[in-house]
Amino acid sequence: MNTEFITLNEERNVSLTAFLQPVGGRLKNLFQRPAVLILPGGGYHVCADSETDPVAYPYLNAGYHVFILRYSVMEHAAWPNPLNDYEQAISMIRRRAEEWHVAANRIAVIGFSAGGHLAACAAAMSENRPDAAILGYPLITADSIHDYLPSAPDAAEAVDEKTCPCFIFATRTDNQVPVENSLRFISALERFDIAFETHIYANGPHGLSTGVPSLTAEKFSGRYCSWVSDSIAWLNEVLGSFGPDGLSEPDFGIRINGNYEETLNLASTLQYVMQNPQGREVLSFFRRLEENGRPLPAAAAKVMTISSCLTYFGMGEETVRKVESELKAIKNR
Amino acid sequence: MNTEFITLNEERNVSLTAFLQPVGGRLKNLFQRPAVLILPGGGYHVCADSETDPVAYPYLNAGYHVFILRYSVMEHAAWPNPLNDYEQAISMIRRRAEEWHVAANRIAVIGFSAGGHLAACAAAMSENRPDAAILGYPLITADSIHDYLPSAPDAAEAVDEKTCPCFIFATRTDNQVPVENSLRFISALERFDIAFETHIYANGPHGLSTGVPSLTAEKFSGRYCSWVSDSIAWLNEVLGSFGPDGLSEPDFGIRINGNYEETLNLASTLQYVMQNPQGREVLSFFRRLEENGRPLPAAAAKVMTISSCLTYFGMGEETVRKVESELKAIKNR
Amino acid sequence: MNTEFITLNEERNVSLTAFLQPVGGRLKNLFQRPAVLILPGGGYHVCADSETDPVAYPYLNAGYHVFILRYSVMEHAAWPNPLNDYEQAISMIRRRAEEWHVAANRIAVIGFSAGGHLAACAAAMSENRPDAAILGYPLITADSIHDYLPSAPDAAEAVDEKTCPCFIFATRTDNQVPVENSLRFISALERFDIAFETHIYANGPHGLSTGVPSLTAEKFSGRYCSWVSDSIAWLNEVLGSFGPDGLSEPDFGIRINGNYEETLNLASTLQYVMQNPQGREVLSFFRRLEENGRPLPAAAAKVMTISSCLTYFGMGEETVRKVESELKAIKNR
Amino acid sequence: MNTEFITLNEERNVSLTAFLQPVGGRLKNLFQRPAVLILPGGGYHVCADSETDPVAYPYLNAGYHVFILRYSVMEHAAWPNPLNDYEQAISMIRRRAEEWHVAANRIAVIGFSAGGHLAACAAAMSENRPDAAILGYPLITADSIHDYLPSAPDAAEAVDEKTCPCFIFATRTDNQVPVENSLRFISALERFDIAFETHIYANGPHGLSTGVPSLTAEKFSGRYCSWVSDSIAWLNEVLGSFGPDGLSEPDFGIRINGNYEETLNLASTLQYVMQNPQGREVLSFFRRLEENGRPLPAAAAKVMTISSCLTYFGMGEETVRKVESELKAIKNR
Repeated sequence: MNTEFITLNEERNVSLTAFLQPVGGRLKNLFQRPAVLILPGGGYHVCADSETDPVAYPYLNAGYHVFILRYSVMEHAAWPNPLNDYEQAISMIRRRAEEWHVAANRIAVIGFSAGGHLAACAAAMSENRPDAAILGYPLITADSIHDYLPSAPDAAEAVDEKTCPCFIFATRTDNQVPVENSLRFISALERFDIAFETHIYANGPHGLSTGVPSLTAEKFSGRYCSWVSDSIAWLNEVLGSFGPDGLSEPDFGIRINGNYEETLNLASTLQYVMQNPQGREVLSFFRRLEENGRPLPAAAAKVMTISSCLTYFGMGEETVRKVESELKAIKNR
Repeated sequence: MNTEFITLNEERNVSLTAFLQPVGGRLKNLFQRPAVLILPGGGYHVCADSETDPVAYPYLNAGYHVFILRYSVMEHAAWPNPLNDYEQAISMIRRRAEEWHVAANRIAVIGFSAGGHLAACAAAMSENRPDAAILGYPLITADSIHDYLPSAPDAAEAVDEKTCPCFIFATRTDNQVPVENSLRFISALERFDIAFETHIYANGPHGLSTGVPSLTAEKFSGRYCSWVSDSIAWLNEVLGSFGPDGLSEPDFGIRINGNYEETLNLASTLQYVMQNPQGREVLSFFRRLEENGRPLPAAAAKVMTISSCLTYFGMGEETVRKVESELKAIKNR
Repeated sequence: MNTEFITLNEERNVSLTAFLQPVGGRLKNLFQRPAVLILPGGGYHVCADSETDPVAYPYLNAGYHVFILRYSVMEHAAWPNPLNDYEQAISMIRRRAEEWHVAANRIAVIGFSAGGHLAACAAAMSENRPDAAILGYPLITADSIHDYLPSAPDAAEAVDEKTCPCFIFATRTDNQVPVENSLRFISALERFDIAFETHIYANGPHGLSTGVPSLTAEKFSGRYCSWVSDSIAWLNEVLGSFGPDGLSEPDFGIRINGNYEETLNLASTLQYVMQNPQGREVLSFFRRLEENGRPLPAAAAKVMTISSCLTYFGMGEETVRKVESELKAIKNR
Repeated sequence: MNTEFITLNEERNVSLTAFLQPVGGRLKNLFQRPAVLILPGGGYHVCADSETDPVAYPYLNAGYHVFILRYSVMEHAAWPNPLNDYEQAISMIRRRAEEWHVAANRIAVIGFSAGGHLAACAAAMSENRPDAAILGYPLITADSIHDYLPSAPDAAEAVDEKTCPCFIFATRTDNQVPVENSLRFISALERFDIAFETHIYANGPHGLSTGVPSLTAEKFSGRYCSWVSDSIAWLNEVLGSFGPDGLSEPDFGIRINGNYEETLNLASTLQYVMQNPQGREVLSFFRRLEENGRPLPAAAAKVMTISSCLTYFGMGEETVRKVESELKAIKNR
């Protein structure tokens, strides 16, 4: 492991610590590694130590390069300074990707509490988006974040269609950052069809970090600690994992449907295609099938893809190919 | 294990299967066991086999008695028939608790899909509430449930302050029951301060049951299977677990705050106490403390308990006891 | 689940309880299931309840049919009565395999303590061998078993080349059945090149069964409980697992080398081939390679296969194929 | 984390890398941490990279300080150079314990392959013994180690009564270091009543290190990777863990019986006490109890403690105390 300490902004005391791992070894085709960029919490007043190195260890163990950003806090915290720090950090990592053996399109951001707010903003409104975001007991809503930094934006309201996949975890009994923050962000992701995973554990105080016994003796739901390995498994799904050929392709697409592609397609949702006059035309034969006794569940139209509708109706391969080519001929929007 | 099959309603084809475990053995003080009541899914058209016995096994393994309710479906499903079936089942279990060695106040209901709708209604609007509810990829909203049973109520709208603690899990890419169903129920729980835990896994189709390889070969996020052991750990927290003295007390209270007690108390939230003129009087010294440099985070008032406020201000034991006795003298509502 | 109770020997009070699972369902090609046959412990004096149904649950959960054999104990225990009971049980299961949807060549035996002795004898000296054996804190040596049943044989001495793969677990501080019993059996397996896996946990009393909290409140190494899921993962490796085409082939061969095949082959060990004059001839070119600077580690000759030797020397595909065909021309023994 | 690189022996190219963690934080009473000293493998020819930093990460995550010793290899490897390197390293760590916040009596050594041989020698024959030892697929026997370093001793033969508790893991199909090496060491520990835990996984090649996917794409039994968390749980049992008062006392004694104490005692084994004429006198009443129908299992005498014998006979507290005081009056050896 090679450690580098880089001052990003001397005046605002902003720095990037890099823990870089070698490539090669027994995995002969491993020429680059994915990376996580850690944004510790601390209410934009400090960068909490318990959310720096202790968070780095499990991701290093999982084979990731790790970067820790100590962003602008206290008198330097005025928005958008922290977001600009993030932009500067991710730009540098992508620019030096070759030198550092970083897979430039497999960089996740992970933030806690106020750092979770910053990570959510990185995911939802930055210039230089991360490829995935992990948010731990994040501050999200204007209501909540304004207690700490009045100039900061509501991160849920910032969510747009370009937001990256997100993994959100929190404890239900956090009495410093109400769980409503996480719920608001999740709803925003749901509205924009952004892929997400979430774990809200029944019991535990604020700020548990990885939850290992060397960090705290407080009482909390033991399964809380699973967020760490779960987030790694999720990253492997979203960004791809390690394999004989280096980094493998992701197991699942990062989009939960095909509504944002350039043309309509089999992964578009039923509701979405039906909103398009030409699309409606292609699917006109559905009505006859429904009348023949297999009505589609109306409420599922929002999430059911054309592909799953065709399976539902028991259509053969030929029909599937025909529908696909007709849909792909229709420009999206 | 002793198996009993009980016909609850011959006309509607409703039955209760009981898998009863012996008491005693190496745990000498174990005179009764907690129980789970399983409500399989199937869109109120069938009771799906994959959500009956395969769900029973892990709870039997964890030491629970298990009951499976095959409730009214198809032509018998008109609401409130299924809910009445539930009422009949739980009444019988509680009535025969002594004979069956069931801990009558430690009975959880677990339902999937349409059975998750029924379990949610049991939790939120039944006469004879369960002590905990586990909801797997549940149908919740009127929109969604009406595709299957037009007479059924919206379970999220039914949530009230007597709703039991809930554990909700689903997959984000379920394209039969939109994840919005789970999110709506969680929001309702949050509004009523009901304790909950939730796990929404990134990828997976509808109806995975326990997710073991002998049930399905479909592709889904591997950590999905953790819902089983997580739900058991959660039940142990909510209902108590097995120990040298038989069943232990729960690790955590089932209420996330003390707002529903008979009097105000240290577990009441700041916001709640401040809404009460007498309570506001008791806490009048907070303002002075805040002015001395430790302002309470405004947004946290909804979730911060008086107890945590006193810790926040560094108050000694004497003050804590004084505030407690003053609050306990104030009738709630 | 379908439960059957079959009296095997009325006089000796021997019975077989079957928990049979349905086939089909979402795994369309699942026409048969693997099975485990449980042999509870109890010093050949009783069949302990804590090692019957509680052991069945996790294997049912994993998709296995489960059989529980209550064999001859007390006045009926004189050897070979218990072994005969086993023979009768496994014969019946294999005979009725079609009716019960059992995969007749995927049946594992699992025994505890005295039942572990019986399972070890089934694995090592029965007529009708199981396909795999799981031994929990087993009695093995003559010394130990004779305290309980003077007529019983030493199971380690019975191990032969037809012994099935074994999974052995125990606790180091068992002060009823010394851990030496497990160690002796493992050494015997090692001598005969039988595949095995073993877990000896640092701390715990005798007779913990699955170790779930509803069985005992005694203090032991928490990871003890992993033997259950580890044994299931091991069975899946040895017997094959569930998949889209029903039951899959095993991940690994059950033989750790090819020394027991009909001819010599690439999986034979170096030492073994070198004991055969014709084999030695085939490998005569190894000496030259060694002299050229890559001496083979002498001590590894016992375990190194010809295949790994060829890799070690960096031989090309052509040489590998040539050596293979020459070896396969040599009859074994 | 503070990284230090210390040259121990310039001529032999021996170095110690220290990853030191801060104390304090949310665990207010944490003034020192336990430590692990890593000895990478490489056949005494190199120090393999895959067994240095990648092994450090999980122990750092668990709260341990980590030291990596790059000991004498190749032309510098002649015995006892590597053992002397170990002695120098552990002496330095204990000497600087206060400065580095190391708990000087909670230092574990962990070695792999040839490093496992060195760790075994450290455990069994060094001047300055570690408090626990973890051996991964170790070279042990003279036969095996002499392929790599002819001057090195057989580690199994070195085991004495002062050997520290050991955790040994390996894969059964390792065809570079035969599993017999591990078995021989385990038997030696068993003979000397040394506490141990062992996991031998069914399938996997040599040199898997932690087994994470970023290290190798080879095929092996998936549960192999559990050795890491299991070894940490075991260390917590042997050395004590993190808690509200800093480091807690161990859960279990490191001795599996009391035979090595200064006097006889309740934790001495039956066999051991019976070898002592005065001890035999104290236990003379056992014969009468056995004749009354509860014969002690003869084979268990080697492992059964006096304490468990008294429980077996159902003796009351008074008798227990009497026996204890009589035994403690008898000097050991």
